[in-house]
Amino acid sequence: MNAADLPPWSRAEFEHQLRTQGKNYHIHHPFNVRLNSGQCSPAQIRGWVANRFYYQSIIPLKDGAILSNCTDRETRRRWIARILDHDGYDDYQGDAAGGMEAWTQLALAVGLSRDELWSLEHVLPGVRFCCDAYVNFARRAPWQEGICSSLTEMFAPQIHKQRLAGWPEHYPWIEASGLRYFRSRIPLAQRDVDHGLEVTLDHFRDRTQQQRAVDILQFKLDILWSMLDAIEKGNPT
Amino acid sequence: MNAADLPPWSRAEFEHQLRTQGKNYHIHHPFNVRLNSGQCSPAQIRGWVANRFYYQSIIPLKDGAILSNCTDRETRRRWIARILDHDGYDDYQGDAAGGMEAWTQLALAVGLSRDELWSLEHVLPGVRFCCDAYVNFARRAPWQEGICSSLTEMFAPQIHKQRLAGWPEHYPWIEASGLRYFRSRIPLAQRDVDHGLEVTLDHFRDRTQQQRAVDILQFKLDILWSMLDAIEKGNPT
Repeated sequence: MNAADLPPWSRAEFEHQLRTQGKNYHIHHPFNVRLNSGQCSPAQIRGWVANRFYYQSIIPLKDGAILSNCTDRETRRRWIARILDHDGYDDYQGDAAGGMEAWTQLALAVGLSRDELWSLEHVLPGVRFCCDAYVNFARRAPWQEGICSSLTEMFAPQIHKQRLAGWPEHYPWIEASGLRYFRSRIPLAQRDVDHGLEVTLDHFRDRTQQQRAVDILQFKLDILWSMLDAIEKGNPT
Repeated sequence: MNAADLPPWSRAEFEHQLRTQGKNYHIHHPFNVRLNSGQCSPAQIRGWVANRFYYQSIIPLKDGAILSNCTDRETRRRWIARILDHDGYDDYQGDAAGGMEAWTQLALAVGLSRDELWSLEHVLPGVRFCCDAYVNFARRAPWQEGICSSLTEMFAPQIHKQRLAGWPEHYPWIEASGLRYFRSRIPLAQRDVDHGLEVTLDHFRDRTQQQRAVDILQFKLDILWSMLDAIEKGNPT
């Protein structure tokens, strides 16, 4: 049966369908399972941190692209907070230093230098292609689809909590202050998900559109998963 | 002689060449001359305000596009202020309500309703094409070129001052508080020009590149000029 012939999901059912996609979140990727259960070497952790930084670095570009496509001032006023959260504002030390700076602190804690991190010298081609695909999607898609693609944040608090709970025990050589990024993202992810879901549940109305939203979310899950494929391959034990 | 064979302009000469383009600024357009010397009818002023609002409305999209192309965090941290200035943040009444809200106050003062303005119903096709060309340029061009295209702001304080000086006398029926947009832009334009010039003078180095910067500025001057051509044609006396 064609999606076009089916009645739309209720709002609650649509949200449930989106959340069900969490089964494909990279929390289940073999590399993440090893990383968060203490089975990664310091070199593998450094490889993950350096590569994942490329993802951090493209987030403001992706969010700028969504802003650039968004003709609704109210949405832009809320969306811009994501760029401020990430790039930071005011000084580079305090609470407003931003996510990229917090990730830099994580990198320092695992033994990378700031220059090494920001030079992107360790970033693998496969990781670049995944991240660039995300930016390109956000540039070309209607802004509501760009917003929908951000909904992998629904699943992020769990992976951050996993890291916060496990890393101090598994990797005592990593200074605890380096984990601030993970802690800071939990409340921000919740706020972002509230907004992203509001836009998505409002915009995708009939079943074909709702299925499209699920497909967009899966595309984004594939990006995160493929990044870990590349990182796993590029950082053997 | 080919530009490639000529020595680069000095920094001061390059800035002078850019500033010289002010001769083509829309301050000299016949419609603007009539507008700022008291020769426009209320209907023409309303036509100008309603159409120029479309330009206001695309500025955050243009600036989002530049952000989205800009891989330099420092530049993004400064550039984002333009979006905040325009869209505003916090409430919709105070100093941070933003340029679009200030323009709305101007529209109310000249006799347009908020709905009429925001519906874009009076926006002429020629005005749309000009503004959309600007956004499309910012989406596709390297971010330094997008930034260079913003340098028509070098000439903006003069046109704002002309409005502030002349309108209260020429158009006493327009409530003076409606002119707040023009007043607010003068210091912001200066700050924006300082940044835009810094990026442009640093980035465009040899003569071919410098000439390209002058051409980009001319493209943007053409956008502003063509908007007034369309507004003039669409709002006869």
